[in-house]
Amino acid sequence: MDETSRTRRIAQEYVDRTERRDWDGLGALLVEDVVYEMPQTRERFHGRATLLRFNQEYPGDWHLRMRRVVADGPHAALWLDARVGEEEMAACVWLEVSEDGLISRVTDYWPEAYEPPADRGFPVERY
Amino acid sequence: MDETSRTRRIAQEYVDRTERRDWDGLGALLVEDVVYEMPQTRERFHGRATLLRFNQEYPGDWHLRMRRVVADGPHAALWLDARVGEEEMAACVWLEVSEDGLISRVTDYWPEAYEPPADRGFPVERY
Repeated sequence: MDETSRTRRIAQEYVDRTERRDWDGLGALLVEDVVYEMPQTRERFHGRATLLRFNQEYPGDWHLRMRRVVADGPHAALWLDARVGEEEMAACVWLEVSEDGLISRVTDYWPEAYEPPADRGFPVERY
Repeated sequence: MDETSRTRRIAQEYVDRTERRDWDGLGALLVEDVVYEMPQTRERFHGRATLLRFNQEYPGDWHLRMRRVVADGPHAALWLDARVGEEEMAACVWLEVSEDGLISRVTDYWPEAYEPPADRGFPVERY
């Protein structure tokens, strides 16, 4: 399997195992000193145990579904549909995979819905 | 050049030509009926001319820089650093490229900064 195929598979497993709450399986995808960043809050933490705990303790009945995975060598970008109860949102996740085939860095963006300008000056649909 | 390499090059040009305000060059990368979506506002518009106008009229002295491009067959994910005056933010952009090598769909996320919870219950750095 080439590097891109391996990265794509790891990215899919990252989402699947998180959604299944398969914590041992998720941990097995991560380097020990994995770095997790949320640029929107400028938060960063380190370590497999902390990343597992972050997911384990995240409040609400959350669910993740892969909408698209784009893999390229050691990098993957994941477009996720997330749901917490009735609330739906998207996530954009950037992964880096080590030479050993483990995830070494996770960067999560959680873009929130907002109201558009009243008039952009040209026809725009709302969907 | 294989499809992924072509997509990666198109994605880089998409950002470079937009940053340079090379509107003819940017238009040459797009299919005539390109679809542009912003899921955060659920806005959608169609057409090369409208997408060019959207960029031409977008207010402020904005600048774009590619932080990462991840290309995979006809898909690319772009992690951009954007700056408008003193304000810096990121964008996550999802591109689809047609068989003819033109961009057929652009999906933009503009995640905004927000304050994290006071205490996540484990050590978190702020950067």
